Amino acid sequence: MTQTRCITLSSRPKGSPVSENFKLEERVLPAPGAGEFLVRIIWLSLDPYMRGRMDDVKSYAPPVAIGGVMEGGAVGEVIESNHDEFGVGEIVTGQFGWTSHALSIGEGVRKVDPSVAPISTALGVLGMPGITAWVGLNEIAGAKQGETIVVSAATGAVGGMVCQLAKAKGMRVIGVAGGAEKCAFAVEHLGADACLDHRAHHAKSLAIEIKEAAPDGVDVYFDNVGGKTLEAVLTRMNVGGRIAVCGAISWYSGQGISEAQPLPAVWRNILTRRLRVQGFIIFDHFHLMGQFQREVGPLVCSGAIKVRESVAEGLEQAPEAFMAMLKGGNFGKQLVRVGPDR
Amino acid sequence: MTQTRCITLSSRPKGSPVSENFKLEERVLPAPGAGEFLVRIIWLSLDPYMRGRMDDVKSYAPPVAIGGVMEGGAVGEVIESNHDEFGVGEIVTGQFGWTSHALSIGEGVRKVDPSVAPISTALGVLGMPGITAWVGLNEIAGAKQGETIVVSAATGAVGGMVCQLAKAKGMRVIGVAGGAEKCAFAVEHLGADACLDHRAHHAKSLAIEIKEAAPDGVDVYFDNVGGKTLEAVLTRMNVGGRIAVCGAISWYSGQGISEAQPLPAVWRNILTRRLRVQGFIIFDHFHLMGQFQREVGPLVCSGAIKVRESVAEGLEQAPEAFMAMLKGGNFGKQLVRVGPDR
Repeated sequence: MTQTRCITLSSRPKGSPVSENFKLEERVLPAPGAGEFLVRIIWLSLDPYMRGRMDDVKSYAPPVAIGGVMEGGAVGEVIESNHDEFGVGEIVTGQFGWTSHALSIGEGVRKVDPSVAPISTALGVLGMPGITAWVGLNEIAGAKQGETIVVSAATGAVGGMVCQLAKAKGMRVIGVAGGAEKCAFAVEHLGADACLDHRAHHAKSLAIEIKEAAPDGVDVYFDNVGGKTLEAVLTRMNVGGRIAVCGAISWYSGQGISEAQPLPAVWRNILTRRLRVQGFIIFDHFHLMGQFQREVGPLVCSGAIKVRESVAEGLEQAPEAFMAMLKGGNFGKQLVRVGPDR
Repeated sequence: MTQTRCITLSSRPKGSPVSENFKLEERVLPAPGAGEFLVRIIWLSLDPYMRGRMDDVKSYAPPVAIGGVMEGGAVGEVIESNHDEFGVGEIVTGQFGWTSHALSIGEGVRKVDPSVAPISTALGVLGMPGITAWVGLNEIAGAKQGETIVVSAATGAVGGMVCQLAKAKGMRVIGVAGGAEKCAFAVEHLGADACLDHRAHHAKSLAIEIKEAAPDGVDVYFDNVGGKTLEAVLTRMNVGGRIAVCGAISWYSGQGISEAQPLPAVWRNILTRRLRVQGFIIFDHFHLMGQFQREVGPLVCSGAIKVRESVAEGLEQAPEAFMAMLKGGNFGKQLVRVGPDR
């Protein structure tokens, strides 16, 4: 048996969490059973996603139950073991929670090699935040050398890694962070070419600053925050730009989520449901016209594809037909008969 | 010389266009010069994108000038020609504008074969709206057999084609249209399995209807309208869903665009700049952990990647550190030291 301390969720926050939502408890863990091992926690990671687990809403993972131990990644030392793979004295990382000790059967647990880097990096640059930055930059955004990237929360665990990986790739890196000290750090230590202080700006003035820092526009936005930074960056995106939606911390505590203001809810859905939203303008794709005609022409010819048209008679009717169409007054393809067929 | 009639833009609309924004004019065209041909317009296409050209704002195409002929695709007959490729009597389609006759050098002009289908289809199912539906469904959304798709403006020129192509692909097709007559048409003639009347709903009740019509959720949303339909569908999207942003007609006349309500502006930017927005959750990508460690581990080891940590001392400090982090109080990766290293 082991005496442990842990922090549980005692109530769900309304808006920003407060101390009363958490409770420090002492609990007794049984000795490890067959195939189990006991971990003494050394480092606990705190990450913004945990805010979501405190709400009783469907997301990509179930919420923490009231009275349950808060979830979280941690690094610790195996101090007792009945497990073949994880032996006493080894350093491991896994979702052990906000606790001083944890029992595990090894699910989702990974060994940490203390000779590579300080073991705390298994929760940072070499852990979940690090791989988040790396996957978001490469797999999700398809970032390329020579492009310009904006990174919000630029000195955070994820953002700081995005800045450094992007710089190493040969990109122009524009950070956005809160306060002069963080901005200076991003430029001096994380490789950012410029870093803008969102606390000094609203969306419009931030957009102007981004334009100055990224005169050729923005190709990639690594979005950790949503909010006004998202609004500002969007006005500076280049055609064909990519936005990796990794987080929306400015909206996590429910700020601004309402029926009158649907953007936070929309963005939260894009994130939690891992949606791909792609704007397109057909003129970019006209090289496919031949293939389209060959494939669809016969379907129209055979009657398999139905044709429904709304016809306005005479060029002079065009404005009225157009105005009606914008209000849904047409039924099928809106045409104007300008002259006789033959 | 040819006497022509055309419709010009006499003033820019504020909100929805009104008759006074248009002017019917008579103009004289010179005889075709070397390499030119004269087209007598038979069919003019009216499309929602034209609303955007009436505004003096940067978009994917320049605006129509005040006094300029309204832009638009048309089908007509070549009646005079000094062009090698386009001969008298041939039927052609191109961006001839809102006019009874047009001179052309053949740029962007395509011949129409009247034996395949009625020539008006070159502006509809076999023209720009048709290829828009086909590209959006296949190239942009990556729609697959067996998936569920929601199509807004389901009886429109693009939407009606999306419904039919999706059905032919073996998808479950849920249309959204305005009014009972259009909804019935979508089900009876366009292959929709169900069609919802957005006029009878606000966003929340529309979401409930979508849930009933698509009990397994929505894999693809072909978005022609933005607005409340977008809000409603987003709550029903499956993980990994795709949204092809093709149009936003509910917002084209500036309804709802304001600083207090940024969603329309955000969505318009996604469309006009052809952005790809991709939400991701790192737990889906943990199979890349090995590759990540091999690539980034040495960079951390060598000091090329900097490590910046904020450390809270003791498990009991975790709630406070977490609350501070949500407000940007951390600087770098936030950790809690729960126990001694060794």
